[in-house]
Amino acid sequence: MTGPKVVIVGGGFGGLAVAKSLAKAPIEVSLIDRSNHHLFQPLLYQVAMAGLSPAEIALPIRSILSGAPRTEVLLGEVVHFDLTKKLVALKDGAQFGYDYLVVAAGARTHYFGHDDWAPRAPGLKSVEDAIEIRRRILMAFERAERLRDPAQQAALLSFVVIGGGPTGVELAGALSELARRVLAKDFRHIDARQTRVTLIEGGPRILPSFDESLSAKATRALVKLGVEVRTDAKVESIDPGVIRLSGGHLLQAETVLWAAGVGAHPLGRALGAPVDKGGRVIVEPDCSVPGHPEVFVIGDLAHFVQDGKQLPGVSPVAMQMGRYVASRIRAQLDQAPAPGPFRYFDKGSMATIGRSQAVAEVGRLKLSGFFAWITWLFIHIWYLVGFKNRVFVLLQWIFSYVVYRRGARLITRQDIE
Amino acid sequence: MTGPKVVIVGGGFGGLAVAKSLAKAPIEVSLIDRSNHHLFQPLLYQVAMAGLSPAEIALPIRSILSGAPRTEVLLGEVVHFDLTKKLVALKDGAQFGYDYLVVAAGARTHYFGHDDWAPRAPGLKSVEDAIEIRRRILMAFERAERLRDPAQQAALLSFVVIGGGPTGVELAGALSELARRVLAKDFRHIDARQTRVTLIEGGPRILPSFDESLSAKATRALVKLGVEVRTDAKVESIDPGVIRLSGGHLLQAETVLWAAGVGAHPLGRALGAPVDKGGRVIVEPDCSVPGHPEVFVIGDLAHFVQDGKQLPGVSPVAMQMGRYVASRIRAQLDQAPAPGPFRYFDKGSMATIGRSQAVAEVGRLKLSGFFAWITWLFIHIWYLVGFKNRVFVLLQWIFSYVVYRRGARLITRQDIE
Repeated sequence: MTGPKVVIVGGGFGGLAVAKSLAKAPIEVSLIDRSNHHLFQPLLYQVAMAGLSPAEIALPIRSILSGAPRTEVLLGEVVHFDLTKKLVALKDGAQFGYDYLVVAAGARTHYFGHDDWAPRAPGLKSVEDAIEIRRRILMAFERAERLRDPAQQAALLSFVVIGGGPTGVELAGALSELARRVLAKDFRHIDARQTRVTLIEGGPRILPSFDESLSAKATRALVKLGVEVRTDAKVESIDPGVIRLSGGHLLQAETVLWAAGVGAHPLGRALGAPVDKGGRVIVEPDCSVPGHPEVFVIGDLAHFVQDGKQLPGVSPVAMQMGRYVASRIRAQLDQAPAPGPFRYFDKGSMATIGRSQAVAEVGRLKLSGFFAWITWLFIHIWYLVGFKNRVFVLLQWIFSYVVYRRGARLITRQDIE
Repeated sequence: MTGPKVVIVGGGFGGLAVAKSLAKAPIEVSLIDRSNHHLFQPLLYQVAMAGLSPAEIALPIRSILSGAPRTEVLLGEVVHFDLTKKLVALKDGAQFGYDYLVVAAGARTHYFGHDDWAPRAPGLKSVEDAIEIRRRILMAFERAERLRDPAQQAALLSFVVIGGGPTGVELAGALSELARRVLAKDFRHIDARQTRVTLIEGGPRILPSFDESLSAKATRALVKLGVEVRTDAKVESIDPGVIRLSGGHLLQAETVLWAAGVGAHPLGRALGAPVDKGGRVIVEPDCSVPGHPEVFVIGDLAHFVQDGKQLPGVSPVAMQMGRYVASRIRAQLDQAPAPGPFRYFDKGSMATIGRSQAVAEVGRLKLSGFFAWITWLFIHIWYLVGFKNRVFVLLQWIFSYVVYRRGARLITRQDIE
């Protein structure tokens, strides 16, 4: 090995931040990911709701890092770590040695022990997820258009979103808008405006991590969009066509979306380090694995406590951790003093409701309504990787805001029953 | 039935032209298609070569026809016709009666009796086809990047396109450009500029339907792009990793694309009318099925002879036939004199070679080079359905022409071996 070698597992926000921060350093970097693209997850719900195409929010990782000559990008699946020998093993048998290892494999949809719900209630973590959700939604309308029985049509035009966090709120709002505003004129035998969207939240209010006043505003905005919001409603079973809630309530719905839980990627456990009950690796204040100062875990895979609270699994946390870890590695190699422990600077949280409303919280500042939405738009576009994507997504939104036609409504590999 | 009923099978160029021409008439129209979108096929090779996203060249059919209140769009697969009872039967059992029937089901990839070649040499007729081709191409580079054996890498970086018509020429040119200009800086263990692209043509020259001088110009442009052009080369077998040509020549290639033949959709035979050996329905001079003046076949599914020559399966033919059939139907309903027999006005043919060259032939006018390419660009953008798509595709091209970064390089459902 010529120079020090850093292996990064995962090309999401965390892993990419490490790689970009090390791009100019005299360090060999290998970034391994199971997919070829970096995904801008905050906008994935737009793909699921036929508002954006996948390519508008995803870029090939090697393309993003093409200007870093000492960085290689490898398409492969990591399955095993040997922290003693400092090796990473891939599914195809290949092994890579490292001097530093950064595991940023992210999170997965989590069903709290009910993995059998997965086929009936898909989650939203990847482009494939988003395309499948989009397909199911569009097919529900297509199938309803072919029927003549009002009860069957109503069942097909009933959608349930489980989980009242930002993802669920965004899905529910966008879905209701899609039905009422975009699809309304496209059908002859159904009235898409009669679509029922129900958002289910197990706790007492949606957006529990936001201030109460913003939860209330978001609820009102959703109701105005035609979404029924049910709180204190836990899901007990998900069967074809019907969901049973706590208290014996039944909900009839053909299409169910799961936004109620994410857990750590299984690679967290593969490290052999202490994990929380979601599988997240409990890291030191410098994001390293206990006993292995050269191995770091960042992003959604890490359990990091700051000021007594666990940091959430959101992209700014992953990005800041990534940059921090890169600076630690560079400092060590430069034999410079190490930076202090990691500290996350909370730049706030946001959630959109439909195409023109949002709630946002930055410290004590609370925004809502259209102004919050504009702020959300610009911040997200700013963080979108790739200048062209920024231009195109902005144009796409201006266009659909003015014209309200959603073009990304492709059904591929459709089921025709 | 209230008014006269027209059933259109297929939402491609032909079927859509009929529907759009009848949109304002007091006629009930049902358009049935197996997929939900209308596809702009001339640009499908751009999706296969990661230059455009599927949604940029496809629009939901019902969205295109949403302004026609008497037109319904149905997602379904037609499997049977009863011309006596005037019924169309779908796979799911539904039946539709008609007063007029227009069958515009198009063409399918044709392997001349070698259907076993299909898995190893995919064709390019649908969005799914294009996505699969794109996946195979991008995966070949990803796999080569993981290897260290130069012979294995060279095999993975060898591509063969079979068929020297416009589709094959466009695929081969775009593929060579993708490798040499777009992917060149993205890899560390392979030199993408060493990619071998071979275009195979069974006849004496590529683009046989064009003037000889343009075939020669196209050949030179392809060679300059790094494509090897082999004419008088018929394929005898396609096996994993190797193709055998007439004369015993062997070509080693990991990825093979088929652009050598299209045949009629099987629905042509289902009509029970006389067909040619490709399965195309031999229609009357008014595009109707012999003995059934109320049943029309148009587009790639029709065998129409004009001035002793069979009309080619290109989009302008389908569009003109569609408009013609619509005018026949309207004339009959208005009890006006019927238009004369169908006559195709040839607006010319074009084929691109790479991102800045093309050959075009309009009557006796022959264009080549960059000027032909600009002409091609504007004509295709003009015919692209949907204003937004026109704007976006134009911007997309201006952007990649200037910057040369192809963003639509997504691999979904990838095979990691």
